[in-house]
Amino acid sequence: MTTSTLQRSLGVHRVLEPAGVLPQAAQRLDADPAIGPDEVRIAVQRINLDAASYRQLTEEHGGDGDRVRAAVLEIVESRGKMHNPVTGSGGMLIGVVDEVGPDSPLGLRPGQRVATLVSLTLTPLRITDGLARWDGRSEQVPAAGTAVLFARSIAAVLPDDLPQEVALAVLDVCGAPAATERVVRRAGHRPSVAVLGAAGKSGSLSLAAARDARAGRLIGVVRNGQEADALRSAGLADEVVVADATDPLAVAAAVGRCVDVTVVCVDVPGAEHGAVLTTADGGTVLFFSMATSFSAAALGAEGMASDVTMLVGNGYTPGHAALALDLYRRSRGVRALIEPRVRG
Amino acid sequence: MTTSTLQRSLGVHRVLEPAGVLPQAAQRLDADPAIGPDEVRIAVQRINLDAASYRQLTEEHGGDGDRVRAAVLEIVESRGKMHNPVTGSGGMLIGVVDEVGPDSPLGLRPGQRVATLVSLTLTPLRITDGLARWDGRSEQVPAAGTAVLFARSIAAVLPDDLPQEVALAVLDVCGAPAATERVVRRAGHRPSVAVLGAAGKSGSLSLAAARDARAGRLIGVVRNGQEADALRSAGLADEVVVADATDPLAVAAAVGRCVDVTVVCVDVPGAEHGAVLTTADGGTVLFFSMATSFSAAALGAEGMASDVTMLVGNGYTPGHAALALDLYRRSRGVRALIEPRVRG
Repeated sequence: MTTSTLQRSLGVHRVLEPAGVLPQAAQRLDADPAIGPDEVRIAVQRINLDAASYRQLTEEHGGDGDRVRAAVLEIVESRGKMHNPVTGSGGMLIGVVDEVGPDSPLGLRPGQRVATLVSLTLTPLRITDGLARWDGRSEQVPAAGTAVLFARSIAAVLPDDLPQEVALAVLDVCGAPAATERVVRRAGHRPSVAVLGAAGKSGSLSLAAARDARAGRLIGVVRNGQEADALRSAGLADEVVVADATDPLAVAAAVGRCVDVTVVCVDVPGAEHGAVLTTADGGTVLFFSMATSFSAAALGAEGMASDVTMLVGNGYTPGHAALALDLYRRSRGVRALIEPRVRG
Repeated sequence: MTTSTLQRSLGVHRVLEPAGVLPQAAQRLDADPAIGPDEVRIAVQRINLDAASYRQLTEEHGGDGDRVRAAVLEIVESRGKMHNPVTGSGGMLIGVVDEVGPDSPLGLRPGQRVATLVSLTLTPLRITDGLARWDGRSEQVPAAGTAVLFARSIAAVLPDDLPQEVALAVLDVCGAPAATERVVRRAGHRPSVAVLGAAGKSGSLSLAAARDARAGRLIGVVRNGQEADALRSAGLADEVVVADATDPLAVAAAVGRCVDVTVVCVDVPGAEHGAVLTTADGGTVLFFSMATSFSAAALGAEGMASDVTMLVGNGYTPGHAALALDLYRRSRGVRALIEPRVRG
């Protein structure tokens, strides 16, 4: 691949300033709806603001919906993308495929309803309705406009058989079960697996993925009795134990014999050492929490003389969206844990 | 092993606050030189600050050596360990075994000269000379004081055939070549390997380890012509290229065809995206820089739809100290790159 082809595939040609950086690092993108030969244009229907971004905007504008709406419009107008300058975060969007360039490798067809699985912080976006149908008081923003996908973007076609909210909730965490499936398959014969944060969206899907990948003993670690009851009813784990994931010694005591693979799905900081401590020498820790500290993981393992392989959970694995939606459809236990969360 | 024995072996009894966490996560340790039955006391001779920590302190204090020294003293005094609160990193130390508790499993004897291979971020440390012999302008800090090793700590007896400064410099980064060796061996037939920060200590040792592990094409990425000349003379890489590791497109352009394994040994933030971009799908990125951002790595790979395995570099691999010292002894190129740094 030539440098210019690589740059195009990542959307560097859409960067207006500063020149030469990747779109996520850019101050401003060119959101022109006219697409290049390897791009795809989406007719936007709805924007899901990242929770941290929405909270920041609401606080900055004293909860005044009109001002929040004006702020979002101003960001998108000035940056060519919904990239909150304070939080650095964006969100995702839903729309209908409008036009597909002849060289696009994404396999999309006009008329398909899709969700973008790359962040809005790198997606060229133009809004054409002034967000008139949005009161500025929710993360979910009805919108009309256009977005552009690059050759290396990722979009998932929304399934017909699942409610849109369910599909979005599953797609939001689809990297975790795909990575878990791969790690467990590669970990030898029926490896034992512990999942921290096992009753949540990514945790329950990861348990189901581990079972699918022929895990041996499967342990779900949850934070309280209510989650333990829900996870036991769901039947996704062989053992359900309660422990504070941020208390390494409590996690080790609850899990008991060390496991071959530990998957970290809790969304609080401080789970690194417990995960390392409960993983056997030669085993693997898969960190799928954005609250993970690189140095805490690296120095923690070293400090405990623990010979574990530690993986940074990659949000992208080929086929991750289909795998997660399939697990949701096939697993009554996953549905039982995720549905109440979507209904909120 | 009972929970209380496990706790003692990890040094939990030395944690003053917050109670019950492991020593690395602690705000403050008890650095009392009186040891317990399974502990070892070291008479400190020299501290080696982690490169990221030293750089941060130097930048924060505008390169003023006196202020850097005062900052290190303040950290050790207030925390009972050398744990940089900004970078989260520490370093290691060298000293003489002073007293060995009767139940210590480390196999040390009083009078042996050792280097601690667990991070200073979890090592109880007391400094008694005010670091009077240090000008604050180098990572190597002559020091007097005491340090304590736990049952699960790691210390290497210093070899007789190498100068102390050399052994310390090599042992400080011995996790990187050991992890590189393992990753390259497991990556299939003669995988291509790029090392970012290839002219440094961990970088040059990682290049030598990759060669030993039968790497294929071996590329050293350095930041300027001077480093390139030094690395070419050392003969550790098949190709030497110059690129700013924090500029993803520059790294990708310099490396050219994507490699199977990328090892990140630079000590500046922002190298995650370049490393991901220059690694082939199905390949592995080994992050051995304490300046690595977990979220930048995770979201970067996702945003570029890059199917790479990302590893948190674990400072501990069995046999890592012997492997690194052996590489140093056997490789004239490694010696040529590391010796001037130690002398400098």
